[in-house]
Amino acid sequence: MSILVVGSVALDTVQTPSGKVSDALGGSAVYFSVSASYFTPVNLVAVVGRDFPERHVKLLNKHGVDTSGLQKVKGKTFRWKGHYMHDLNQAHTLDTQLNVFADFSPELPEKHKGSKFVFLANIDPVLQRKVLSQVRRPNVVACDTMNFWIESKRKELIKTLKLVDILVINEAEVRQLAKEKNLVKATKKIFAFGPKALVVKRGEYGALFFTPKHIFSVPAYPLENVVDPTGAGDTFAGGFMGYLAKCGKTDERNLRRAMIFGSVMASFNVEDFSLNRLTALTKAEINKRFEQFKKLTHFDLIK
Amino acid sequence: MSILVVGSVALDTVQTPSGKVSDALGGSAVYFSVSASYFTPVNLVAVVGRDFPERHVKLLNKHGVDTSGLQKVKGKTFRWKGHYMHDLNQAHTLDTQLNVFADFSPELPEKHKGSKFVFLANIDPVLQRKVLSQVRRPNVVACDTMNFWIESKRKELIKTLKLVDILVINEAEVRQLAKEKNLVKATKKIFAFGPKALVVKRGEYGALFFTPKHIFSVPAYPLENVVDPTGAGDTFAGGFMGYLAKCGKTDERNLRRAMIFGSVMASFNVEDFSLNRLTALTKAEINKRFEQFKKLTHFDLIK
Repeated sequence: MSILVVGSVALDTVQTPSGKVSDALGGSAVYFSVSASYFTPVNLVAVVGRDFPERHVKLLNKHGVDTSGLQKVKGKTFRWKGHYMHDLNQAHTLDTQLNVFADFSPELPEKHKGSKFVFLANIDPVLQRKVLSQVRRPNVVACDTMNFWIESKRKELIKTLKLVDILVINEAEVRQLAKEKNLVKATKKIFAFGPKALVVKRGEYGALFFTPKHIFSVPAYPLENVVDPTGAGDTFAGGFMGYLAKCGKTDERNLRRAMIFGSVMASFNVEDFSLNRLTALTKAEINKRFEQFKKLTHFDLIK
Repeated sequence: MSILVVGSVALDTVQTPSGKVSDALGGSAVYFSVSASYFTPVNLVAVVGRDFPERHVKLLNKHGVDTSGLQKVKGKTFRWKGHYMHDLNQAHTLDTQLNVFADFSPELPEKHKGSKFVFLANIDPVLQRKVLSQVRRPNVVACDTMNFWIESKRKELIKTLKLVDILVINEAEVRQLAKEKNLVKATKKIFAFGPKALVVKRGEYGALFFTPKHIFSVPAYPLENVVDPTGAGDTFAGGFMGYLAKCGKTDERNLRRAMIFGSVMASFNVEDFSLNRLTALTKAEINKRFEQFKKLTHFDLIK
C-alpha cells in the first residue's frame, strides 16, 4: 500500500567535521519519502518556492515518489543552516528561513485522499489535523513533532494526538511532552493522550518501541564514518512506515521488523551528506544490513 | 570456576531524587562480588579500616564471597559522598576520603594465586599489575579503569593493558583512552594496546561488546523506578564475569549471554540504594529478567 507524507522540503546548508554542503536537498518529507520509497510507493505533499531545482523533483520521481501534491509557489524554498560538532549528537541551528513554508496549507490531490498509511512529519499540529481531515479512512496514522510545538502549541498538539496511532519523537521530547523524567512512566502519560504506540528516537543510541504491553529495543548501527546526521530521524520513520505499508500489517512481529528497517535506513543516511547515500542504495544493501542487525543483537537463551 | 576480584570496599553516602543513604556498603569490589556471587564463588581482595562494620563482612560471606583477602588495617574505611540529579546519568562527587585505601597494597592469600578468572576493578594500574604478578596462569583477565588514571597514569595503564584480555570501561573513557571521537575507530586503537575484547558501558543506553571481528549490542532494561545508579558498572562486570567463570568458556555464544547477564544484574542494582536489591535477589528473578531481555531485543528475519 502507498504512503502519504506531509512535511517540509528544504534546501539545507550543513557543516560537520567531515565537510560542508550548501543549499543541498533536505527536509523531513524528502528524507522520509526517499527512505520509504525502497519499500512502497510514496505520495508527497509539501511546498517549495520557484527557486527549487527541477532536478530534485526528478530525483524524487525516479524513486517512485508521486510529487503531484508538491505545490510550487511564488517565493523562496524553506532553508535551514546548521552545523554539528565532533560528537555529532546535537544540531546547532545557525539560520532558519521559513520562506514559502510559513504559509504552507496542505491540500491533498483527490487521488491521495484514500491513502491508508499516513505520516505527518514535523509541522504545526493544526496543519497535521488539516491533513487528516482530508484523508478518508486511513489504517495507520503516524506523526512526528518537536520541542517548539510542544512548548508553543501544546493544546493543539494534544488534540492532534487523539487522532494518531503511532507517535515518533525524540527521547527528550517524550519527557517534555509527558512532563515526566522517567521514560517508561512518560510513555504511559503519552498513551493517555491517544497514541497506541510510541517510537522513541535516541540518536546514536538507537530507538525504543513502546506499546502499553511491550517494549522493543533497537540499537543504532555502530559506524566507523558518520558524515552528517541531518534527516536521520525522518529517514528512520521512512523505513519504519515504508516496511509497515509494504506488508500492510501492524502486528507485533512486523512492527519489530519495521523498527529494524528504520534503523537500517537511518544508518545509511548518516554515511553521507544530504540524500547522497540514501538515493544510491540497493535493496540488497538494505537486506544485508537488516541481517547485520540480527548479528548485532542476537543471543541464545539458556536451555 | 571461582573469580578473583581486587578493588575498593567503601562506605557511601548517596543522595538521589528517591532519597538518601549514609555510610552504606559500597565500593567496586563489593558490587562486583555480590553480583558475580549469583553465578560462581568469588574471592575478594581489598582493604578496610577498623571502623568497617562486621555485618557487611558477614553479608559478603553469606553470598559465598571469600573475604580471607580482605585486609582490615588501622584507620578509616574509604568513603565516597555523591549525589545524582533527576537525569541519574551523572554522579556528582561531593567528597572522597581515600583513608586506608590510599596505602592499599594488594596481597593475595596463597589459595587465591591459582585463580583462573581475574577482575581488576578500578584501582591504580600499577597495583593492577602487582595483582597480576601474583596470579599464576589465569585464563581470563578483565579490568576496569577511569578517567583519572587515563589522564594521570596513561603509560602505566597502557603497560597494564598489555596483560589484559577484556577491558570494561565507560563510553567516554574509550574515547579518552583512544584519543578518538568515533567509537568504532576508538576500539581499534584500544585493541592495539593489548585487550582482545572490549566492554563499553553506556549507562541507561546499555552496553556494547567489541572484538576485532564482532560487535554485540545490549540495551539497558527500561525501568519505571530507578533509585540509585551507584555501582551499576561494577555490578554489570560482576554478572558478565560471573557467568563466564560459571560456564568456564569464553566463546562468542557465551560472551553474548554474559553481556546480557551483566545488563540483567545492573538493572536490578539500580532499583534500590547500596546493595539492598542485589543482596535480596533470587536466581529465578535473574533468569526471568534474562528472558525478558530476549523479548526486549528479539525480531524475526525476513524469510
